[in-house]
Amino acid sequence: MNAQTVTSVPAYAVPAAGAPLERATIPRRPVGEHDVLIEIKYTGICHTDIHRAGDETGGIFPMVPGHEIAGVVTAVGSGVTRHRTGDRVGVGCMVDSCRECDNCRAGLEQFCANGAVETYNSTGRDSGPTYGGYSTHIVVDENYVLRIPEGISLDEAAPLLCAGVTLYSPLTHWNAGPGKNVAIVGLGGLGHMGVKIAHAMGAEVTVLSRSLRKKDDGERLGADHFYATSDPATFEQLAGGFDLIVNTVSANLDLDAYLSLLKTNGTLVNVGAPPAPSRVTMFSLMGGRKTLAGSLIGGIAETQEMLDFCAAHGLGSDIEVISGEQINEAYERVLAADVRYRFVIDASTIPAG
Amino acid sequence: MNAQTVTSVPAYAVPAAGAPLERATIPRRPVGEHDVLIEIKYTGICHTDIHRAGDETGGIFPMVPGHEIAGVVTAVGSGVTRHRTGDRVGVGCMVDSCRECDNCRAGLEQFCANGAVETYNSTGRDSGPTYGGYSTHIVVDENYVLRIPEGISLDEAAPLLCAGVTLYSPLTHWNAGPGKNVAIVGLGGLGHMGVKIAHAMGAEVTVLSRSLRKKDDGERLGADHFYATSDPATFEQLAGGFDLIVNTVSANLDLDAYLSLLKTNGTLVNVGAPPAPSRVTMFSLMGGRKTLAGSLIGGIAETQEMLDFCAAHGLGSDIEVISGEQINEAYERVLAADVRYRFVIDASTIPAG
Repeated sequence: MNAQTVTSVPAYAVPAAGAPLERATIPRRPVGEHDVLIEIKYTGICHTDIHRAGDETGGIFPMVPGHEIAGVVTAVGSGVTRHRTGDRVGVGCMVDSCRECDNCRAGLEQFCANGAVETYNSTGRDSGPTYGGYSTHIVVDENYVLRIPEGISLDEAAPLLCAGVTLYSPLTHWNAGPGKNVAIVGLGGLGHMGVKIAHAMGAEVTVLSRSLRKKDDGERLGADHFYATSDPATFEQLAGGFDLIVNTVSANLDLDAYLSLLKTNGTLVNVGAPPAPSRVTMFSLMGGRKTLAGSLIGGIAETQEMLDFCAAHGLGSDIEVISGEQINEAYERVLAADVRYRFVIDASTIPAG
Repeated sequence: MNAQTVTSVPAYAVPAAGAPLERATIPRRPVGEHDVLIEIKYTGICHTDIHRAGDETGGIFPMVPGHEIAGVVTAVGSGVTRHRTGDRVGVGCMVDSCRECDNCRAGLEQFCANGAVETYNSTGRDSGPTYGGYSTHIVVDENYVLRIPEGISLDEAAPLLCAGVTLYSPLTHWNAGPGKNVAIVGLGGLGHMGVKIAHAMGAEVTVLSRSLRKKDDGERLGADHFYATSDPATFEQLAGGFDLIVNTVSANLDLDAYLSLLKTNGTLVNVGAPPAPSRVTMFSLMGGRKTLAGSLIGGIAETQEMLDFCAAHGLGSDIEVISGEQINEAYERVLAADVRYRFVIDASTIPAG
C-alpha cells in the first residue's frame, strides 16, 4: 500500500444499530504531514464496541468499532518525528483532541474541553466519521500513536490500549503500591488487567467477584485474595479493609456496601458506567472521609507510561485470538461473560474487499 | 463549686423525644486525675441538637444537647498538664475516644474504630450517659478540651467547635487556598463559617444559595460571588468552574448538576447527611475524574488548629445570644432558617435547680 494513494481499506462494519457485523470497505484519509499509516495486526474487542454497535441514538452507521489497536508503521508524513516505518505501535480510544485547552495541556486529553476525537463513531478533523480498528489499516496523527515496547507481543498488547490504561490510570492516581490494600471488583477484560497491574505495582490485591468460579484464575493473575460478593459474610469479613477499590462492573452495585469495605480516607473508583443513576447514602462517605470517584481511560502520555510499565513487568492481556468471521459470535460470548479475558481480532484474516 | 463535690448541675434537658426543653438538674462526674472542670459560658445550638432531640429511635432521654461549648477552667485533676484554672477553653462533639486505634493515632478521633464518646447522647467512660453543653458546668478529659485563643470572644467561639471545624477540615484537606475556586452550598450556620474560612485561606469563594436573599450577607462574610441555585442559568454559567464544592445542605441535591460545576479532578464534599440515599450518575464522576466525598467534623488536633487559624484571622461565628428560656423558640427559628447564623445560649441565664 502506498501512503499517497490509500483511500479505501477492508473492514468489518455494523451497517445499522444492532445489526450483525459484515464485510465492508471504508475510506482512510491520505497520510498527511503529521500522520502515521499503520498496518493493523490485532484489535481487541471491548465491551464498549458492543454497546456502541447497538446504540440507536448515539451511533453513527455504518460503524467500524475497535479502539484497542496494535500494528506496525508502514508510512509516515513528512513532518513526523515520533515514529518511523517498521515501528510497533498502538492506538487507543482517541485519535485527536484540541491540544489547547487546560485538560489537553495537562495531558488529560480524554477530558478535552472541546471534545476528544474518538477512534470510531466520532467526527474527525477532516469532518468525516472516524472508523476504528476492525480493519487492516488506519491513518492517525503521530501524537495519538503510542510506541509498543519489544517486551509485549502485539496481540497481547492490543487490549492494553483501552483496558490496560483504564485500570492503570486510577491505580496510579490513587497510589496503589506497596503497603496498600487494593480490591478489584469484577474479573473480566478490565478487572483481569487491574489485578495484573496492581500486583505489579506491589499492592496487596483482592478480587471481589460474584462467585468463586474464577478463583484459580484470579490467583494466577496475581491476586492475593479472592472473595465472592454473593456471600454476605464477605462484607462483614472485609469491612474497613481497603485503601482503594476499583469497580470494573458496569452495573448498579450497592455502593454503601462497597464503601463500608474502605478504610478511613479510602476511595471507591468506578471505571464502568451503569446506564441508570446509582444510589449512595452520604453518611457512607462522611463516616471515614471516604470518596466515590470516577476515572475514564487515561491521557496519551499516561498511556505510553502504562505500555512501558507493562513491558517492564512482562504484562499483557490474557487473550483469545479470533478471525474476522468470528466477531459476531465473539460479541455473543462477551455478553455472556464467556471470555478469558479479551477477544483479539487477527487483522490478517480480514479479507480484501 | 468544688472539684471533689460537684455531682449535680443545672441544665436544660429534653425529657422525651420531640418534647420541649425544660429546666433540669443533671449529674457531672467528680473531677478525675486527667479531668478538667469547665464553667460553661456559652453553648451554640447546632441543627444536630434539634435532630437528636426529636430522635425516637437513637435518642437517650432525658437528653441535654450542646456540643459547641466555650467556657473557663475552674478546676483540674492532679495529672492534668494541658490546661490550668482560668484558661479559656472549648469542647466540641467528642469527649473521649479509644486513643489506640489507627484513626485515633492518626488524629482522626471522630472516626475512632471503637466509637468516639460524643459530648451528649452517648455513653461515657463511667458508663453513664453523657450530657452536653446546655448546662452550667461540664467535666471533660483534658485531651478532649481545646484552648480558645485570646483573639476570639467566647460567645463567637462556641459555634466554631462544631460548625467551624466541620468546614475547616474539608477546606484544609482538599486544599482550599490561593488560586482555588471554592463554592459553598447553603449559607446557614455551617455555610457562613465556610465562606469566612475559605476566604481567609485565600480561595476565591462563591456562595450557591437557593435564592439571592442573603447576597449582601454573603459578600459581607467574604464571598466573591453569589448565585441562586433556583435559577437554572446558574448551572450553565458556572459549569466546570470549581476546584472544590462544599455542600452544607442536609437535603438530597441534584448531585449530577453540582458535579457538572466542578473542574477536572474537582471534589464535591458533603458535610451534611440527608436521611435518604442520594442519586448520582457514575458518568458525572468519570467525565473529569471527579470525586464525591464526605467529611465529618475534624480530629482534636485539627480542631485546635482551626481555633488558632480563626483567632489569627479574627474569625468568629455570627451569632444571636439567647437565654436558656429562649431555647425552644430558637429551635423553631432554626427549623425555619430564621437565624443569622447561630444561636448561642448564655449559660449565666441557666437558673440553679
